[in-house]
Amino acid sequence: MDPFVVVGGDAAGLSAASKCKREAPEREVVVFEKGKWVSYAHCGTPYYVKGEVEELTDLISLTPEEIEERDVALHRDHEVTAINPEAETVTVVGPDGEREQAYGDLLLGTGARATQPFETGEDVFTLHGLPDAAAIRARVDPAFDPDSAALGPMDPDSLRPYATRPAPETVAIVGGGYVGVEMAEAFSAYGTDVHLFQRGDLLPPFGPAVAGAVESTLDSEGVVVHTGTEVEGFDAGDEGVSGIRYGDQRLAIDMAVVGVGITPNTDIAEDADIALGETEAVAVDRYGCTDTDGVYAAGDVAESRHTVTGEPTWVPLGLTANRAGRAIGQTVAGEPTPVGDIAGTAVVKAFDLGAGRAGFVTEREARDAGFEPVSETITAGSRSGYYPGAAETTVTLTADRGTGRVLGGSVVGTDRAAKRIDTLATALNAGHTVAELERLDLAYAPPFSPVWDPILVAAKVLADAV
Amino acid sequence: MDPFVVVGGDAAGLSAASKCKREAPEREVVVFEKGKWVSYAHCGTPYYVKGEVEELTDLISLTPEEIEERDVALHRDHEVTAINPEAETVTVVGPDGEREQAYGDLLLGTGARATQPFETGEDVFTLHGLPDAAAIRARVDPAFDPDSAALGPMDPDSLRPYATRPAPETVAIVGGGYVGVEMAEAFSAYGTDVHLFQRGDLLPPFGPAVAGAVESTLDSEGVVVHTGTEVEGFDAGDEGVSGIRYGDQRLAIDMAVVGVGITPNTDIAEDADIALGETEAVAVDRYGCTDTDGVYAAGDVAESRHTVTGEPTWVPLGLTANRAGRAIGQTVAGEPTPVGDIAGTAVVKAFDLGAGRAGFVTEREARDAGFEPVSETITAGSRSGYYPGAAETTVTLTADRGTGRVLGGSVVGTDRAAKRIDTLATALNAGHTVAELERLDLAYAPPFSPVWDPILVAAKVLADAV
Repeated sequence: MDPFVVVGGDAAGLSAASKCKREAPEREVVVFEKGKWVSYAHCGTPYYVKGEVEELTDLISLTPEEIEERDVALHRDHEVTAINPEAETVTVVGPDGEREQAYGDLLLGTGARATQPFETGEDVFTLHGLPDAAAIRARVDPAFDPDSAALGPMDPDSLRPYATRPAPETVAIVGGGYVGVEMAEAFSAYGTDVHLFQRGDLLPPFGPAVAGAVESTLDSEGVVVHTGTEVEGFDAGDEGVSGIRYGDQRLAIDMAVVGVGITPNTDIAEDADIALGETEAVAVDRYGCTDTDGVYAAGDVAESRHTVTGEPTWVPLGLTANRAGRAIGQTVAGEPTPVGDIAGTAVVKAFDLGAGRAGFVTEREARDAGFEPVSETITAGSRSGYYPGAAETTVTLTADRGTGRVLGGSVVGTDRAAKRIDTLATALNAGHTVAELERLDLAYAPPFSPVWDPILVAAKVLADAV
Repeated sequence: MDPFVVVGGDAAGLSAASKCKREAPEREVVVFEKGKWVSYAHCGTPYYVKGEVEELTDLISLTPEEIEERDVALHRDHEVTAINPEAETVTVVGPDGEREQAYGDLLLGTGARATQPFETGEDVFTLHGLPDAAAIRARVDPAFDPDSAALGPMDPDSLRPYATRPAPETVAIVGGGYVGVEMAEAFSAYGTDVHLFQRGDLLPPFGPAVAGAVESTLDSEGVVVHTGTEVEGFDAGDEGVSGIRYGDQRLAIDMAVVGVGITPNTDIAEDADIALGETEAVAVDRYGCTDTDGVYAAGDVAESRHTVTGEPTWVPLGLTANRAGRAIGQTVAGEPTPVGDIAGTAVVKAFDLGAGRAGFVTEREARDAGFEPVSETITAGSRSGYYPGAAETTVTLTADRGTGRVLGGSVVGTDRAAKRIDTLATALNAGHTVAELERLDLAYAPPFSPVWDPILVAAKVLADAV
């Protein structure tokens, strides 16, 4: 049998490669990665920039050596430039030139890239991958050493120009999503003046209750938040970016990060006539298979099926990639395994605040998905009121009026709020109604929760409204 | 219509009274409480003894005045001594003598009392209710003031003898359940030498993984843990208890707390021929109604229905009481509302350790309930490994071999481990299989969770075994 070929050596690709090898050790598995880095924790990059994670190589999950030990043939610096479904081969370009590689099964784990709609110059960064993270850290951290061994395969000479210039005094962040909010915290750790620009509200998928709480936290931490503000562009100076233009205003800056979204890397899929979905990511069935026989897609390049609607959706997140990759590895090893649905469950940290979301948070989203939504937002304690450390926890819960089915919600607060969203994610998977949610036997003890967990309080209030 | 009469002014009783009044304001609601205290947080008493909760009155949820404001007729110092189902009356003894009170609906919320199998003398305490908590705090806290206004209706003269004697140097705690573990922490806060005695393992409902972790934490905090040890009794000295006897050994002590369990207060129910269940608590249907028309029972005196088996069970905990009381209040107000099933979800704190449990944790429990159990215990990180604060989290997960259905489990660790049990409690309510659990879209971000939450890691491992 021809090998299982994986395009992209990150979460989805390597989960699939490892799982396939574990389940079917005799199957040949070949991974092509166009860059130098494999198996790294993308979500950890803001904390590396902040310095909370000390070394870049701390973000590596598996080293190339560990991958090879699993008997996976890993080829870095090898780009797959074409898929030839009829021949069941891929075209690979590596340091030694171009060649064809036959596949029995193929997984596209090509990920996504940062969207960058502005004309930029020096000192305007995006944050997508370890080289970006290293460059930004080099630019902002006065103690940065480009010759450190803990920079892995980074070229010291590529970082030296960033490291030798004075750290920026004022940074503009464009985009108030995950990257924007997390980078605001990261830059603040260096005493940098931070301006965060966002078209609408912060963190749109989290809804207004979270947006408000995060904005007020950023504000109290000294970040200047410009919500409802359209950025027009940057001005370039002699030594990189010198200003940012918005409305009829201009702010002098020394550096900028643009985090306005990511785009799935679908080029080779499109060239091979592999179908994309309406979201413009690669369409897959519940086993992660594309419309082309033997070709799978997983991770940021692929769609998923939504827990609530059963319809295709695109929410590129880490667990989704790992889980789908692992399932596909099991499937190609001979045991067909669904990749699992997603509720769009996500959590984010903003200084001491944590927030979570799952399903459809806002009535608007829910209405667009064909429901007749009703929503309530409540604030309750994180612990018994008399127990030290209790903090306000705000929960938004949305349900369908006719059926009472829970559609989604959010949680935000300073005391262990974020992971409370898992209860809701599980209830969404179960298709629970508000009445069922209200009667869940959740854990209570004064140090951990009030008698009625904030999720239950929200359910009680919403139950009166559905 | 005759009034809704409630026996017992705590969680179940007052939840029912308040809810009934809110839904049917015209309905007369009468509550009889035999003691002086109403609506208090029983689960907070160990933290009051510890001094972490400063004042006894901090544990009050609703004052008598607040209850009266809800137009609930509250009678403290009134004991219901008999139920007369044929006449639909109860016999009440109060300061002004005995009288009959007619009821339309009746709720038994008589709670439970601490089991005390030993011959005891002075300085041997149980902890069940605020007077016990005040006495123990008076005995152990050198700064205790029996004349403090924050002691509510406590009689200062009843506390003075405890407060005037020197604080104990050595305390024995008999029973390694919630009370025992929480009191070990409480006494340690005063520098007391603490010996904890338990017949078998600590915290039996939590299973061996939690028992081991809690024992090792207690140990490292200086508590001397005597597991697998049967206590024979106490020796009395001139000034209260002087020793504890176990095996052929004797330890000199100055004080003891016995926390070996609680017994439901079913006397008046039994006298009225209201049926008990096999657990010896009052049997109820899914609306909390006993076998006697118009008579409900809720809280520690009543059985509940188990989420996993659908069979009656007795797990006296705070949320169960509040939720059942509230549902019964709604039912007697005219809208029949199920009290909800319970998974036996519980959490406990032992110093910096938190633990949770739900459903059937041990294979033995699950087998006794008619399943063919298979169980796995794993240890995973609480956050991404590179993120500061990540700590080991140990999860036990048990499932039915034939069906793959999740039956229960436990979580223990120092970093936000306890409330992770809510995910499992929700999955139990949904009747999820291990495969469904493994594919839950739980929240991931480095500060909050690894990509694979510890619950998912356990599900992945168990999935290979079912």
